[in-house]
Amino acid sequence: MPFGFTLRSIDPSGARCGLIETDHGPVETPAFMPVGTQGTVKTLSARDLEEIGAAMILSNTYHLYLRPGEKLIEEAGGIHRFMGWKGPVLTDSGGFQVLSLADLNRIGDEGVEFKSHLDGSTHFLTPERVVDIQLSIGSDVMMVLDECAEYPCDRGRAEKAVERTTLWATRSLAARGARVTRGEYERVLFGIVQGSLYPDLRERSARELVALDFPGYAIGGLSVGEPKKDTFDTAARTANLLPADKPRYLMGVGHPEDIVEAVARGIDLFDCVVPTRNARNGCVFTSRGKLVVRNAAYARDGAPLDPECRCEVCRTYSRAYIRHLFNAGEILGPRLATYHSLYFYLHLLSEMRQVIREGRFSRWREGFYRAYSPIGSEYNGSV
Amino acid sequence: MPFGFTLRSIDPSGARCGLIETDHGPVETPAFMPVGTQGTVKTLSARDLEEIGAAMILSNTYHLYLRPGEKLIEEAGGIHRFMGWKGPVLTDSGGFQVLSLADLNRIGDEGVEFKSHLDGSTHFLTPERVVDIQLSIGSDVMMVLDECAEYPCDRGRAEKAVERTTLWATRSLAARGARVTRGEYERVLFGIVQGSLYPDLRERSARELVALDFPGYAIGGLSVGEPKKDTFDTAARTANLLPADKPRYLMGVGHPEDIVEAVARGIDLFDCVVPTRNARNGCVFTSRGKLVVRNAAYARDGAPLDPECRCEVCRTYSRAYIRHLFNAGEILGPRLATYHSLYFYLHLLSEMRQVIREGRFSRWREGFYRAYSPIGSEYNGSV
Repeated sequence: MPFGFTLRSIDPSGARCGLIETDHGPVETPAFMPVGTQGTVKTLSARDLEEIGAAMILSNTYHLYLRPGEKLIEEAGGIHRFMGWKGPVLTDSGGFQVLSLADLNRIGDEGVEFKSHLDGSTHFLTPERVVDIQLSIGSDVMMVLDECAEYPCDRGRAEKAVERTTLWATRSLAARGARVTRGEYERVLFGIVQGSLYPDLRERSARELVALDFPGYAIGGLSVGEPKKDTFDTAARTANLLPADKPRYLMGVGHPEDIVEAVARGIDLFDCVVPTRNARNGCVFTSRGKLVVRNAAYARDGAPLDPECRCEVCRTYSRAYIRHLFNAGEILGPRLATYHSLYFYLHLLSEMRQVIREGRFSRWREGFYRAYSPIGSEYNGSV
Repeated sequence: MPFGFTLRSIDPSGARCGLIETDHGPVETPAFMPVGTQGTVKTLSARDLEEIGAAMILSNTYHLYLRPGEKLIEEAGGIHRFMGWKGPVLTDSGGFQVLSLADLNRIGDEGVEFKSHLDGSTHFLTPERVVDIQLSIGSDVMMVLDECAEYPCDRGRAEKAVERTTLWATRSLAARGARVTRGEYERVLFGIVQGSLYPDLRERSARELVALDFPGYAIGGLSVGEPKKDTFDTAARTANLLPADKPRYLMGVGHPEDIVEAVARGIDLFDCVVPTRNARNGCVFTSRGKLVVRNAAYARDGAPLDPECRCEVCRTYSRAYIRHLFNAGEILGPRLATYHSLYFYLHLLSEMRQVIREGRFSRWREGFYRAYSPIGSEYNGSV
């Protein structure tokens, strides 16, 4: 079954419901992809991911390229067999990590040179090489190498990043095309719209990439420190510049309320380390908001992390126990917190798909905020 | 159903097969108890433990007393509800940890004073208090406070430890009796035989404790640095001094081959951190012996940890993947290794019960050693 996207319903709010099809299975959208940076969603097994209802996961090209190396993964039969995950996988291009993690990097039209954050070795990646690395890794959805401008960013820099992103997108397509069937399944390439917060640059970037006819589009360069209002304004404007019949992926977003807002603006696909990274630090998301379970306040609290949640962790363990695990430095703490928080995210997306199908997203969103305290106003945990 | 032990069959070798019954379920013996020091078998969930076939687990009174405190566990409904584990739990007395972990300790006939390794606070534990702490924790099987002599140990010291162990066992029984029903289930108290490597002191200790008629007996003071031959000679001699109709628990033993040897000498119950602690360091046990999966030699090895093993980890993941997880510092590495190694131990015990019932333990033991390379001769991993 070739890669496809079917737009199934549009809520009066503009929120969309659709279906991505891949050779590793379907992904109902809007969807959240748990992040498995190094070929593992930290602390969770592949079976855990199935259990909590993950459809597609994201892994990081930069990390896998450096360790264990894409050739090793290819020899192991690809990322799915390597990590025991049967569903679809999306890999980013590594561009963002090169700029944010590598010790030193030099970017030019040809590509990007950087020193590994692991051992200081020097590497040079071109757009073509980045596609080939992802083909070796074996992801279902590959991302083109792009230049993600930092925030704030002057117009000249943002414009150069747009030009280079289009140049690299063109070269990526020229190298292997937008759809590659290798082994037993098809892999597709998504373009990434840049342009910082400049509406005309976003428009130019979108126009140039849409002309290249990618099977899907990401909105990059957001969630890099700009005010939230700018994130959503730019995401909404950019989404409107993209073809309605292609999936729209807002990279690196976000907190639960950010995802609700972006869904309202016509976004289909998300990834973010927020639920997993927070969980490992003893902070989980619940239907009432953020809960810092490692706090002493929960030492004798017999309630589950989220009394509204039906996940295995909430059906089995108390806040008191999970707080004890964090307090005692036990690995099971981060594991249980991660399991719950990802379940919460995936369940939230599933709920949104339902209400979009039923045309009552705006109403649902009001109800969501009545229960949920956004970041900044931590839920005090009382049941 | 009151605590009980039924001896079901004795193999010509002397290996025994039996059944411990508790209000939290049965334990077929010989049995291995995974160690959940701080109320969690490190990295594993309660459901994992059920899946791999754990019947009874051990938790540490010393650790739980210091953190989160036995009263907190009691308020949470006891250790079973606290950690989500439905099967029986045995707690040690904490005596061994006081002597090995606490920063400073002073032992006298009245009890033991020590400073917490966590915060330096001073504590004083008596035999009576240790029983009460375990009653609050809510374990099914409690251990008396004993004095575990170090190795090597002169005769005078060993004799004093035997005398004090009997004195404390007597006081423990006087305080609450050997069987206490509290809440909805019965808890029983086991005695611990000491005597270092001195046959006459072991005999005296066993005689004095057997006279007190405990529902079960542990053999303590072994696996503390003495030669293996002494461990097994002393275990075998001591086992013979204990009533045949009571379970015999050899504390802190051991490697797979140690357990095979101890089973051959009539031991029924085991606990040890060896499988779990090794697993967290990237070293697992397999039907061929120890395998250090974190070694670079396994970087491209597509075989499961143990090709003979049918556990979830061996059915899903390769050595190459698990090696990558350890190499990348991923928590899933210790988790998968722990799951496999405990499965291996529990499966080994299950296999031994089977061959004991069929009267062919000695034959089986020969076959075990043909495949298995004991510690010191690491299995090279080739399939």
